[in-house]
Amino acid sequence: MKINLNADLGESYGPYVIGNDEELLGVVGAANIACGFHGGDPVVIGRAIARAKETGASIGAHPGHADLQGFGRRAMTLSADELRMSVIYQVSAVAGMASAFGHPITHVKPHGAMNNQACADRAMADIIAQAVAETDPDLILLAPALSELAAAGEAAGLKVALEIFADRTYEADASLTPRSRPGSVLHGQAEALAHVKRMIEAGGIVTRDGLVLPTPFHSICVHGDGAAALDTARALRAALADWGHAPVTLPKAVAG
Amino acid sequence: MKINLNADLGESYGPYVIGNDEELLGVVGAANIACGFHGGDPVVIGRAIARAKETGASIGAHPGHADLQGFGRRAMTLSADELRMSVIYQVSAVAGMASAFGHPITHVKPHGAMNNQACADRAMADIIAQAVAETDPDLILLAPALSELAAAGEAAGLKVALEIFADRTYEADASLTPRSRPGSVLHGQAEALAHVKRMIEAGGIVTRDGLVLPTPFHSICVHGDGAAALDTARALRAALADWGHAPVTLPKAVAG
Amino acid sequence: MKINLNADLGESYGPYVIGNDEELLGVVGAANIACGFHGGDPVVIGRAIARAKETGASIGAHPGHADLQGFGRRAMTLSADELRMSVIYQVSAVAGMASAFGHPITHVKPHGAMNNQACADRAMADIIAQAVAETDPDLILLAPALSELAAAGEAAGLKVALEIFADRTYEADASLTPRSRPGSVLHGQAEALAHVKRMIEAGGIVTRDGLVLPTPFHSICVHGDGAAALDTARALRAALADWGHAPVTLPKAVAG
Amino acid sequence: MKINLNADLGESYGPYVIGNDEELLGVVGAANIACGFHGGDPVVIGRAIARAKETGASIGAHPGHADLQGFGRRAMTLSADELRMSVIYQVSAVAGMASAFGHPITHVKPHGAMNNQACADRAMADIIAQAVAETDPDLILLAPALSELAAAGEAAGLKVALEIFADRTYEADASLTPRSRPGSVLHGQAEALAHVKRMIEAGGIVTRDGLVLPTPFHSICVHGDGAAALDTARALRAALADWGHAPVTLPKAVAG
Repeated sequence: MKINLNADLGESYGPYVIGNDEELLGVVGAANIACGFHGGDPVVIGRAIARAKETGASIGAHPGHADLQGFGRRAMTLSADELRMSVIYQVSAVAGMASAFGHPITHVKPHGAMNNQACADRAMADIIAQAVAETDPDLILLAPALSELAAAGEAAGLKVALEIFADRTYEADASLTPRSRPGSVLHGQAEALAHVKRMIEAGGIVTRDGLVLPTPFHSICVHGDGAAALDTARALRAALADWGHAPVTLPKAVAG
Repeated sequence: MKINLNADLGESYGPYVIGNDEELLGVVGAANIACGFHGGDPVVIGRAIARAKETGASIGAHPGHADLQGFGRRAMTLSADELRMSVIYQVSAVAGMASAFGHPITHVKPHGAMNNQACADRAMADIIAQAVAETDPDLILLAPALSELAAAGEAAGLKVALEIFADRTYEADASLTPRSRPGSVLHGQAEALAHVKRMIEAGGIVTRDGLVLPTPFHSICVHGDGAAALDTARALRAALADWGHAPVTLPKAVAG
Repeated sequence: MKINLNADLGESYGPYVIGNDEELLGVVGAANIACGFHGGDPVVIGRAIARAKETGASIGAHPGHADLQGFGRRAMTLSADELRMSVIYQVSAVAGMASAFGHPITHVKPHGAMNNQACADRAMADIIAQAVAETDPDLILLAPALSELAAAGEAAGLKVALEIFADRTYEADASLTPRSRPGSVLHGQAEALAHVKRMIEAGGIVTRDGLVLPTPFHSICVHGDGAAALDTARALRAALADWGHAPVTLPKAVAG
Repeated sequence: MKINLNADLGESYGPYVIGNDEELLGVVGAANIACGFHGGDPVVIGRAIARAKETGASIGAHPGHADLQGFGRRAMTLSADELRMSVIYQVSAVAGMASAFGHPITHVKPHGAMNNQACADRAMADIIAQAVAETDPDLILLAPALSELAAAGEAAGLKVALEIFADRTYEADASLTPRSRPGSVLHGQAEALAHVKRMIEAGGIVTRDGLVLPTPFHSICVHGDGAAALDTARALRAALADWGHAPVTLPKAVAG
């Protein structure tokens, strides 16, 4: 089994630094690059693309709500037209930069509140998926396994890459346990690795209550904020290799 | 002689309306579409592209400084890298939207202070021209005749469309008379038409003092803010036809 | 009975013009001045304050969500701390400018989605009301009659001015009929005047179905976008005088 | 001799962290708090004020250009009215928050490019100084010694606190050596301490070439970005005490 590791990158802004793009791009096979609305500015985006080209990681656009102050994590209600145009604009900006630098994007993954809202709201998911298809029908939509967003991607005729989270627990409906609940985020490295192993062996999402929700998946989302998260990402990459899963780019993981 | 009329469009923002894109696109042969930094939001940009497609006007990206409050008219000092990435990002965003809507952009024209600064500062002009070439070497750079920006476009290997202004007077060095000087803007329709006619007949820019600065030009920049400006644009289009100059898109005007 | 007319002002931004502050300030007795987050910039705010000082209209701060693109009309979910600090910051900015110009603010009225959300969500309303009290306990909170926001203002120990809308119909729970429903906005001048007259005579809100919800009110909200709206505001002011209700500033209306 | 240490604070934005406000406020006697235009958001500003209240540091507003992406370090050309209103707005916002939290501001210090431009441009300096006086004539203007900004503060009738920089070298005209020149920033702790000691003993600014420019000064500007800078600030505080200079708040330093 080939599997991809993906992470959010390019989210710094002017002198404001978030994450460690340089190091994380040495670990993951795919990078979701912020588009300037929730984070990321042209210089930061350009640097992330250039670094991904060096490491060979595949890249995608990571559009979010126009809410820099809230880092795109505040739920917002947009009209259908606003949402559609926002996605086309953001994906186009990063896609164009990536082409200019000789390392075209291969996927799109919505960010933060835009992603969370679309996972539960099919109408919103459809708008996003269709906007991606309008921009470039060959793009892969990277979406949480068993989400409305993944279903919308299929319906829009896109290739869909399904992802699971290494450090988040799941509810019975395949949604992430809200961060407000104790235990929703797995902070220990051993815990995260065991969580991933269990899901690979079970062939699906394993919920907080031990329920198995069968689903294929192509990618595991990791984080790079802080030294511990980076170490967990590295350990997971090594463990996957040990378990016989070659770490690959997102297009290779989807191709199977 | 074929000649193009160009105007700035797509500069509204959310509920904030500037100009009359709908009407102006019935007059001009080329539209410079704001990219979201000095004006324009994704919905506004999308609408301007769709309307240009209907009328057959060629379109271009109109990147400006990230200064919505000052509408991109405040001079700003950016590092070389900031300026380069800003241009690539902005052009990519509008180019991608335009391609998604089946009406690809054919040119780039910098806005406001970014344009003014580049007309006098060759180093800055070079960065902009090279950024356009990096994004897409087939794009036309629309630049004021006899400016450093035009020279930089040539040096970067771009096709360059030279423009003159219908309603602005010129200094002896081919720069526009600063708006702070009385008489720098020609408000009357008859005055603007006479100004253009004189330059066509003279084969160059005619300065405030009656000096002729010989130069070819391919496009005339008009404005659409207010009913009077729109009427002047319409009258100029009719007059050009009377004088035997077919109004064409920018690529056709450059092809000659 | 003394009654106040209030309107939203100072919502232009840089070169982007919304409304007609100059004219509207000749009509209303109180102006709600945008604070720079959903609209308004320092120059626009300064001008609105100066003009209100000339006409004698009382003024208030009109804080909204940090969403210029959506004009503060998009519902957003903020943390308690974000909402509290946002209100204190915005009210402070306009209050300080108004004091510097010798015409201190006397009230606060939340804008758009922030207002709508608070009218239905008591927890959010409490945060806003307490933030106003923290900034200056002598400020009046201008809130829709029978709303959670009005109740929160009372609970926070603020003077509360209750408002009704001249051009909007009401549901049985005293909420405004959503704009998406046909007939929710009264466009005709005669219709708006009759609506207000009915509510004054009934001593309360009159719903779409003719139900009377008894409540005192101190102010009527009018709009100034477009010539028709401005005419309606003027006609309403004249009609109120005819009906024996002197148009006064907000503090005078609350004092009774 | 009483002397003050000042530092810039409250410049984080949403999830974007700059500096270490918590630690730095244990060292300095005065904090310049960003106002939301070049950095700082309402939550960040609120936290910085609360922490300063705990430590007893006096605080000031630190207004900058509306340029979050460039962190207020890009030179911008504003009209007189834009600059005046921008300063009044920003100072009012932070002053109001500080009063609400029971720790009123006592000074204003412009940030980055706004400060640098005003140090060399008397017309711009006058606009800023007069805007501060309009907002509150009792505020102290914290300005570089021997600058046009300091002169403008005097002319506007403000109390002026003069500052020198611990870690920057000076040119013969009392301006800071541009960062682009090697050696313009003193990175070593010993070097910075020696630089300050020399200036205290000389009773003025000591330039790169050893020239003494006599001037009183009331405050020393330190930085807190990175562990080394924080250590230098701590060491400087200790050294000043050793040399017999009690570290005080800015109002006490100005009172002498």
